[in-house]
Amino acid sequence: MSNPPIVPLIEYENASPEVRAVYDDIMATRKSDWINNFWKVLAHDPAQLKRMWESLKEIMGPGALDPLTKELIYIAVSATNGCEYCTYSHTAAARAKGMTDPMLMEVLAVAGKANETNRLANALRPPVDEAFKPKG
Amino acid sequence: MSNPPIVPLIEYENASPEVRAVYDDIMATRKSDWINNFWKVLAHDPAQLKRMWESLKEIMGPGALDPLTKELIYIAVSATNGCEYCTYSHTAAARAKGMTDPMLMEVLAVAGKANETNRLANALRPPVDEAFKPKG
Amino acid sequence: MSNPPIVPLIEYENASPEVRAVYDDIMATRKSDWINNFWKVLAHDPAQLKRMWESLKEIMGPGALDPLTKELIYIAVSATNGCEYCTYSHTAAARAKGMTDPMLMEVLAVAGKANETNRLANALRPPVDEAFKPKG
Amino acid sequence: MSNPPIVPLIEYENASPEVRAVYDDIMATRKSDWINNFWKVLAHDPAQLKRMWESLKEIMGPGALDPLTKELIYIAVSATNGCEYCTYSHTAAARAKGMTDPMLMEVLAVAGKANETNRLANALRPPVDEAFKPKG
Amino acid sequence: MSNPPIVPLIEYENASPEVRAVYDDIMATRKSDWINNFWKVLAHDPAQLKRMWESLKEIMGPGALDPLTKELIYIAVSATNGCEYCTYSHTAAARAKGMTDPMLMEVLAVAGKANETNRLANALRPPVDEAFKPKG
Amino acid sequence: MSNPPIVPLIEYENASPEVRAVYDDIMATRKSDWINNFWKVLAHDPAQLKRMWESLKEIMGPGALDPLTKELIYIAVSATNGCEYCTYSHTAAARAKGMTDPMLMEVLAVAGKANETNRLANALRPPVDEAFKPKG
Repeated sequence: MSNPPIVPLIEYENASPEVRAVYDDIMATRKSDWINNFWKVLAHDPAQLKRMWESLKEIMGPGALDPLTKELIYIAVSATNGCEYCTYSHTAAARAKGMTDPMLMEVLAVAGKANETNRLANALRPPVDEAFKPKG
Repeated sequence: MSNPPIVPLIEYENASPEVRAVYDDIMATRKSDWINNFWKVLAHDPAQLKRMWESLKEIMGPGALDPLTKELIYIAVSATNGCEYCTYSHTAAARAKGMTDPMLMEVLAVAGKANETNRLANALRPPVDEAFKPKG
Repeated sequence: MSNPPIVPLIEYENASPEVRAVYDDIMATRKSDWINNFWKVLAHDPAQLKRMWESLKEIMGPGALDPLTKELIYIAVSATNGCEYCTYSHTAAARAKGMTDPMLMEVLAVAGKANETNRLANALRPPVDEAFKPKG
Repeated sequence: MSNPPIVPLIEYENASPEVRAVYDDIMATRKSDWINNFWKVLAHDPAQLKRMWESLKEIMGPGALDPLTKELIYIAVSATNGCEYCTYSHTAAARAKGMTDPMLMEVLAVAGKANETNRLANALRPPVDEAFKPKG
Repeated sequence: MSNPPIVPLIEYENASPEVRAVYDDIMATRKSDWINNFWKVLAHDPAQLKRMWESLKEIMGPGALDPLTKELIYIAVSATNGCEYCTYSHTAAARAKGMTDPMLMEVLAVAGKANETNRLANALRPPVDEAFKPKG
Repeated sequence: MSNPPIVPLIEYENASPEVRAVYDDIMATRKSDWINNFWKVLAHDPAQLKRMWESLKEIMGPGALDPLTKELIYIAVSATNGCEYCTYSHTAAARAKGMTDPMLMEVLAVAGKANETNRLANALRPPVDEAFKPKG
């Protein structure tokens, strides 16, 4: 059995109107009928809950990049940081948006390789090539 | 002036035949006529140089994901790890493959947000929702 | 000379009205007459600029914690992540809010020690003591 | 059930006199009658146990910063590094020193935001503003 | 009970000939009759499985450094990154190659201290001493 | 020109007797006649300076591991954390203790690979094999 959360989960039925409004928007946006646990711990700070949900809704929606590509980036970063919860939640989200297992394995191959070469460059300190420097 | 690399750059004219063979393949694959500094420091270990180049060529090429998406993932991970050289080199590579500034800014918005929520989840420890757990 | 930014700085005189509105609010809030470079690169994505500024203004203001304590936490995290720009900007911000050098040195002593014990715990894997587990 | 520790816990009754002396000082300093598991794994290296305890006692005590502020910084760093044990132990320690849930949520809001902006700055590479550079 | 893997384990009896060939080489190289779970998840991408195994076999074998020293370095990095699986697998591997508990405790003392001083240096930004700069 | 340190360097001639005593011990221990910049910034907190130096002297000396192996571990961790100063200072220290370039390249090959596989394991979440779990 894993350890309990650091703050208790705030369920819909015990939530303040302010928190319920965010929960309602999460479910409406996702066309789902439940709230995942990340929001139930964040609800201890209703202002933070609202700010985070509204930012994520804006950032993860379609734009210059499509939502699936954004989920893949989220997985790569979460793997890099070793966030267990985020790995499960964003893998599930990406699969719901069409990520196949071969796509997941390629995301991780790239993320793994970046983690490797990042350290080689940080240790050996090659100067940035002139050709790579942006021109003002 | 930035600090010198930890090992000197090995230029083509001073490289062993083994190293030159890799340099030649890098230039042929990229249809370019120069080698960037990352390879010139890695060349101090010719076996590692060859292994790294061949892995990267395989991983970063087209597959279940297209090469541009892979470069975006590379940028997100390099930003997360704070690798200066990699930020410059992979931003340049992504631009050469079609990344626009709005795409770059969205990659970073997603990567930034993932870095933020990763820490909230790691600190508050919400249990992984049953719905997110893969079914064997 | 350090490397150029990945995207050019957007100065006030070249900024769109949307960006200028954020710049104006930054200067009004801080009672200052200039904009630091972090915002000038973020301005390439005006929506992100606005979202980030409004979040930071809300988060870093007085609340359950005072603004100086928040700056000290910011420094500790930035040191942990090795962010050069953030180290300079938040050290300056903390000093403007009253941080003395002895306070800075203590922040870093604590942050350094946390970085050390985090790894010992992550490697040796002691079970979480029952007494430390929050009671539902 | 979580995985066992990498080295067995050394309980007081099985500890050497050298280890017991440190355990005794921990309990006397904390006015408690038990030792948490972090020390019981570290006790496999009595010199390291003693060094770590004495450093922590010195660093975490009152100084230019008060002990509660120091615990908040510890939580922020532990969240950044994803240390599960440390998150539980230092949240408990901070609560014992007066941290309320609103304070915890603000620590994490700041730490989360720092983790986000650290990556934006590390990726976009704005030059450090002259005004932020310390004067010799 | 811990959470299930993100992709199911591929056991030998269900593996493709391509995957079995790698599994066979792993067992032959290690003179063992079983495959650990890391490879069973990686097997979802047979090309990545093969590439990773062949790289690791080459890198972790004897060279300018002996295999035990390499395992110690692996533990130090895995502790730094907070990888639970890797901590268990590489501690076991190192013990099989002769690592004693006092050696493990010293690896972690060094890794912990490096994690501490890395942050002090990244925060206080001392210039690199001329004497430390490699001569071209 | 790189950015100035966050706090000024404290040179021997301007140091307090307490700081000079540490500087003297550093030089005597190393049989050298100069102090590197890391200590000159840390000297703003004489107690921290003394504690850090005494810990490092104890940890990095001969024990279950030899001093050169310890320097190699230090380099691997510093590369993982992206600490520029530490990379230069510990590469120089390791070379002074006998590290050759082929040894350095192998340290980095191992550290790079660990950084890669750490992320694959953290993302795919294979359960820890029973055979890897320490027996109480």
